[in-house]
Amino acid sequence: MGSLINSDVTEGCDFKPLDPEEFRKQAHQMVDFIADYYQKIESYPVLSQVQPGYLHSRLPETPPDEPESFEKILKDIEKDIIPGITHWLSPNFFAFFPATVSTAAFVGEMLCTCFNSVGFNWLASPAATELEMVVMDWLANMLKLPQTFMFSGGGTAGGGGVIQNTTSEAVLVTLIAARDQLLDVIGVESICKLVVYGSDQTHSTFTKACKLAGIDACNIRSIPTTIESGFSLSPSIFRKVVEADVAAGLVPLYLCATVGTTSTTAVDPVDPLAKVANDYGIWIHVDAAYAGSACICPEFRHYLNGIDQVHSLSLSPHKWLLSYLDCCCLWVKDSSSLVRALNTQPEYLRNKPSESNEVVDYKDWQVGTGRRFKSLRLWLILRSYGVVNLQRHIRSDVNMAKMFEGFIRLDPRFELVVPRQFSLVCFRINPKSHYGSNYIDMLNRKLLEWINSTGRIYLTHTIVGGVYLLRFAVGATLCEERHVVAAWKLIKDGADALLKRSEE
Amino acid sequence: MGSLINSDVTEGCDFKPLDPEEFRKQAHQMVDFIADYYQKIESYPVLSQVQPGYLHSRLPETPPDEPESFEKILKDIEKDIIPGITHWLSPNFFAFFPATVSTAAFVGEMLCTCFNSVGFNWLASPAATELEMVVMDWLANMLKLPQTFMFSGGGTAGGGGVIQNTTSEAVLVTLIAARDQLLDVIGVESICKLVVYGSDQTHSTFTKACKLAGIDACNIRSIPTTIESGFSLSPSIFRKVVEADVAAGLVPLYLCATVGTTSTTAVDPVDPLAKVANDYGIWIHVDAAYAGSACICPEFRHYLNGIDQVHSLSLSPHKWLLSYLDCCCLWVKDSSSLVRALNTQPEYLRNKPSESNEVVDYKDWQVGTGRRFKSLRLWLILRSYGVVNLQRHIRSDVNMAKMFEGFIRLDPRFELVVPRQFSLVCFRINPKSHYGSNYIDMLNRKLLEWINSTGRIYLTHTIVGGVYLLRFAVGATLCEERHVVAAWKLIKDGADALLKRSEE
Repeated sequence: MGSLINSDVTEGCDFKPLDPEEFRKQAHQMVDFIADYYQKIESYPVLSQVQPGYLHSRLPETPPDEPESFEKILKDIEKDIIPGITHWLSPNFFAFFPATVSTAAFVGEMLCTCFNSVGFNWLASPAATELEMVVMDWLANMLKLPQTFMFSGGGTAGGGGVIQNTTSEAVLVTLIAARDQLLDVIGVESICKLVVYGSDQTHSTFTKACKLAGIDACNIRSIPTTIESGFSLSPSIFRKVVEADVAAGLVPLYLCATVGTTSTTAVDPVDPLAKVANDYGIWIHVDAAYAGSACICPEFRHYLNGIDQVHSLSLSPHKWLLSYLDCCCLWVKDSSSLVRALNTQPEYLRNKPSESNEVVDYKDWQVGTGRRFKSLRLWLILRSYGVVNLQRHIRSDVNMAKMFEGFIRLDPRFELVVPRQFSLVCFRINPKSHYGSNYIDMLNRKLLEWINSTGRIYLTHTIVGGVYLLRFAVGATLCEERHVVAAWKLIKDGADALLKRSEE
Repeated sequence: MGSLINSDVTEGCDFKPLDPEEFRKQAHQMVDFIADYYQKIESYPVLSQVQPGYLHSRLPETPPDEPESFEKILKDIEKDIIPGITHWLSPNFFAFFPATVSTAAFVGEMLCTCFNSVGFNWLASPAATELEMVVMDWLANMLKLPQTFMFSGGGTAGGGGVIQNTTSEAVLVTLIAARDQLLDVIGVESICKLVVYGSDQTHSTFTKACKLAGIDACNIRSIPTTIESGFSLSPSIFRKVVEADVAAGLVPLYLCATVGTTSTTAVDPVDPLAKVANDYGIWIHVDAAYAGSACICPEFRHYLNGIDQVHSLSLSPHKWLLSYLDCCCLWVKDSSSLVRALNTQPEYLRNKPSESNEVVDYKDWQVGTGRRFKSLRLWLILRSYGVVNLQRHIRSDVNMAKMFEGFIRLDPRFELVVPRQFSLVCFRINPKSHYGSNYIDMLNRKLLEWINSTGRIYLTHTIVGGVYLLRFAVGATLCEERHVVAAWKLIKDGADALLKRSEE
């Protein structure tokens, strides 16, 4: 924006929203603000203690007409925003799955923002498309995926990877590819006959994606699992369910198998499930959002055995590969099925490279049109740390979880509910008295509430097989052994107080 | 991550991916790198001049095992990445719609990244949810939207706004809400009878969203427009198409009206279209991705007349309100219809505030589960600049487009193809000779190719009503009058050379 020689608006000639020197000044101030925040992050309660509606009363009803100073805004962030933050980066955050971060990803994200390139097609920013292709092949290499999932193994119509925002979108786009491929054969009016499969442990986003895609809610199978099988999906039960559907005149479409479920990190056995699914022409997607990252270590790679038989795989580096939100990597063997279902060809985006079929246009691999240059983050992570350090990082988290698991085993008032496989420990207090299961559940609810109300650590719960349990998820980037030790002491203190009270 | 007292892996004890002092150092370096890039951005060719596959040959096939230095990576960004960038922030970028940026949004984005809060529900980061509610109400105020689109006008089941990634998602989620509301009444097996409506100028993402939602491709109406009506959708033709569908036993579902189409910024008349749609119980969405932002100025607000009669409205501040990608604001009157269609209730996300119904859980307003703290960007923009400067910004762009329009009018070899309404000028070279339309199209194609091959500016084209035209989109944040003047001189030079050649 500049001065307006022919303007009837004489005001506003001096508004420069991106003056490089003002940019430099404010961005440096923000770097220090953030570094200071990271330094003192342990001083804040992990779980925000504000009440619903706290912010509305603190802020004006309308935006200001005139500018306010950056210094005033920074003060308001301290005063009004930070109290309402649940500090996901705190080393005392053990809830959900932590969202992991790193300096490399932060500066990579700054660079992505800086260029603000809208890489819907190759020409709109060739580097954005090509770096994503390179980085997705690099990650595929680290995971020892078959060549069929890599660009270097085929061509633009073959295998390759793409960065989605979330697992939800990875599931949605592959489901649409599978759906349209099948409806092309059996006719669009058969959409109500399509059946999709997951277990009762599959992430809720699977059901949501299926509904978005127009799958009849009655045809979304949530196959029961049991504690005895570690909450993993049984191939023989899966086969029976599919057979019953086929016998009923329905058409099996899509299986979402999970490597590392959200509740307990259960692993569905990819190899035997894929064999069943392939017998029926079912598209197999593997959701390895959390645990897939562990498979860059040889000792965990076996959880992906059978991956050569599936159609698509997704994992989210924001969960365990230090990338910040949001970054979900999706690989497919047959990208042409995605492109057939998702491509658009408006005139205003037509260009010679796209028409040459020599390039990838990522808009045809995703829901939206516009897309950011996210591969910069992954590129900076992989180069700044190297594969060796990323493996160390995974192993360190797993070892801290093992340590916590050891604490649980040594205290007779506690028990592990399912075996630990990665960096999540599922446990509960169970004083092995004559109390019934409702009472035990209630004790655990009270323990969790007490722990979180202290603001010193944050844990979450789940219910599996009817059992209410607490989840101790190691993985916050700043977490060290001392935090795990202190967390365990706090949990024990809570148990002491609770059991003492319940005995009184 | 820390040292591992009980570890069987003794290596890797010193890998700290988020050491605050290392963070401070690298982030400061990156700020200077970016400020320098912004300072010298005019020295790069706007449109990248690399060939397909350029990057693959420059980078290794696999990631490094060991860390590489930040200095080396920065050098490689200069050497390998920047040549492949199409510089969307260049003041000489006049293609598509420019993606606008600002210092305030950049530092806001840094802060969003910093917290990395995954605000799927209120408790997961109360500030993230509540600031988004406040900011969406602020913007609604600036646009003079009716109270029914604001949180302050209703409650959690009523009106309000949410930040989506892209227009595609805004259309998809509202379409799903409309679809499921209707299928609840007429039965899920009627999905193949649902009909959706747009014009032949509606963004391609509308068709894509409809296909994602399982709408039969045969039932997606792309109603023709004409140059005489400025490519806007005619309410009377719309009514006839709907009547024919009803007569054929089909069920009208959803209308996407556009305020500011991508090709030519045509405006569909919201008020009379809404009257027709409401007669048939059709959900009306207004896609104002680009031009909606202009409506913060009183002189443009009339383009939203009738907005009180529609169900939902989206606009993308990354297009004209300086926000960087990706940021699409969606307002709905009846958020409960979104929530009914999109909510998930997995046990591991259950919590007291959500169950109290006193809070908004934004995961139920969008496709994915996880979500970033994007409202920080908008909050910083609105406070740092104030409404007055944002209005100045819009007017300044419009005035620069008017100036360019004036240049076209004064040169008899050129013509405006449609009247300019905002900051886009649609023009073509037309030497008014006896040459046919194919020849004129060819001249314009050649002119565009020549202009873009210089690397000095970047323009794109479209075809409307059978006419091939060039789009001059003013709006890059750094653009000043001198850039528009220089661009016009370059275009004239191209025309001189081209017409001279064609006469020889």
